[in-house]
Amino acid sequence: MVGAGECPPPVAELATAVGRAVARAGAVLVCGGLGGVMQAAARGAREAGGLTIGVLPGPSHRDANPFVDVAIVTDLGHARNAVVVRSSHALIALPGEYGTLSEVALALKVGIPVVGLKAWTHLEGVVSAEAPEEAVARALERAQRAHARPR
Amino acid sequence: MVGAGECPPPVAELATAVGRAVARAGAVLVCGGLGGVMQAAARGAREAGGLTIGVLPGPSHRDANPFVDVAIVTDLGHARNAVVVRSSHALIALPGEYGTLSEVALALKVGIPVVGLKAWTHLEGVVSAEAPEEAVARALERAQRAHARPR
Amino acid sequence: MVGAGECPPPVAELATAVGRAVARAGAVLVCGGLGGVMQAAARGAREAGGLTIGVLPGPSHRDANPFVDVAIVTDLGHARNAVVVRSSHALIALPGEYGTLSEVALALKVGIPVVGLKAWTHLEGVVSAEAPEEAVARALERAQRAHARPR
Amino acid sequence: MVGAGECPPPVAELATAVGRAVARAGAVLVCGGLGGVMQAAARGAREAGGLTIGVLPGPSHRDANPFVDVAIVTDLGHARNAVVVRSSHALIALPGEYGTLSEVALALKVGIPVVGLKAWTHLEGVVSAEAPEEAVARALERAQRAHARPR
Repeated sequence: MVGAGECPPPVAELATAVGRAVARAGAVLVCGGLGGVMQAAARGAREAGGLTIGVLPGPSHRDANPFVDVAIVTDLGHARNAVVVRSSHALIALPGEYGTLSEVALALKVGIPVVGLKAWTHLEGVVSAEAPEEAVARALERAQRAHARPR
Repeated sequence: MVGAGECPPPVAELATAVGRAVARAGAVLVCGGLGGVMQAAARGAREAGGLTIGVLPGPSHRDANPFVDVAIVTDLGHARNAVVVRSSHALIALPGEYGTLSEVALALKVGIPVVGLKAWTHLEGVVSAEAPEEAVARALERAQRAHARPR
Repeated sequence: MVGAGECPPPVAELATAVGRAVARAGAVLVCGGLGGVMQAAARGAREAGGLTIGVLPGPSHRDANPFVDVAIVTDLGHARNAVVVRSSHALIALPGEYGTLSEVALALKVGIPVVGLKAWTHLEGVVSAEAPEEAVARALERAQRAHARPR
Repeated sequence: MVGAGECPPPVAELATAVGRAVARAGAVLVCGGLGGVMQAAARGAREAGGLTIGVLPGPSHRDANPFVDVAIVTDLGHARNAVVVRSSHALIALPGEYGTLSEVALALKVGIPVVGLKAWTHLEGVVSAEAPEEAVARALERAQRAHARPR
């Protein structure tokens, strides 16, 4: 799950609903571990009893938001975005700015399915979704298809 | 937990016992996700009902050993060693070769406690342990102390 | 300088002209070190007597194109894109696909000036250029301004 | 060239002599770009008319010591050590502590020749040298042999 480090309340609500739906589907939530969309999604997943992974850019566990169960401490700066992307079976992208765009572009480049939730659907290859449950359903479906293909 | 990608049976048994003790202590096992010591430790943790994280060097989830619950796919090559080290609250080091040594040295450099289980105790700063349970107990104790210090 | 690993002849000609102009301005060409736009630009810079740096994604010097003077061997996969971006005082972006987009987005995110040469000008913050010499002039001008600002 | 970020005058003198010998041999000096042994070696290479590359751990060109000609800005923290190692055809290791040890170990792991100058010669596989010119001669000789082997 990728999106902005700071976000307005409606986007945070979307993210929390995505996190909840990920957990209900029995999937693990992987995110960047900081605030904004990352924290909102982790909160949703945690509330629904799911497991949350935060792949942090800095050198310390302490940067993780309180809803991260397992912090991956990379100290790689923005290069950690590549780890978030690669570790995801499918990427759900919420509204964001250039940081999020760099992750979406990288996922498309390396062939990881991207579902854009009210965002990024102008990019060729991004699967469009209008609601959190729909986004998660499409992401899991694409992830399975991608997994079935030999790589 | 770090150690060699290929290891003789006695070292694998040690690693499995470490994984088991990590899980019984309620801690998460972080390892490199491949074979040898990494697989043996993940098997032990899994058997004891623990959570296992494998931080992989390559570009695919498929490289993870079957006892990894969550694969972190870095595609960073050996630079992923820094992620294994940084993500650990304490490092338990089993016998290994230069790959393991580079991880032990990095942990000592950045101030992450290192417990050497029948190995690496000639390096200043490595805490010595003779048995798996002792290694885990010492690692958790050092991790707590390090966490209590302001960083 | 960033752009596609495979490109049609007109784009390669643009890239070679960019490389030439970079060298004539006394600047160092930093690129991804492989084929396509990267090779064309390095050839141009080399022909004009400039210094060329190739930041490679793989584990071997041997992947560098023949016009790379100094190969930086990262073995970081796509995470090396972040190193190409960060190492540039300004980024000249040629037409490309999602790999290039991820680099442009990352540069915009971290505040490195981006000049789009017949490309990427729909992204807010990208400086537009229609000719190679103009692109290099604008890139150097922006790099100086950015350097003058305290960071 | 690897060694400590802070070093006593005799080690700095050794490093400067190594840099000078690297430049005189027509080779490029790759180092970590910061102070101590890195700065002393870069100064030597610069004085002898050589080219110096500094692979920096942080996010800014400004951290480079004044004798670095080309700064590679990684923002990878200690993971940049892997880039220093991989980018070297051979590694000359001066006295250092655990940071240097992690680099020496990684080079030995991936098969890059290591020459220890008054240091690290207790590690199997490290080629011993007692004087800077000898270290550089051995490093170049080993690099050529390694290059001649198919990888």
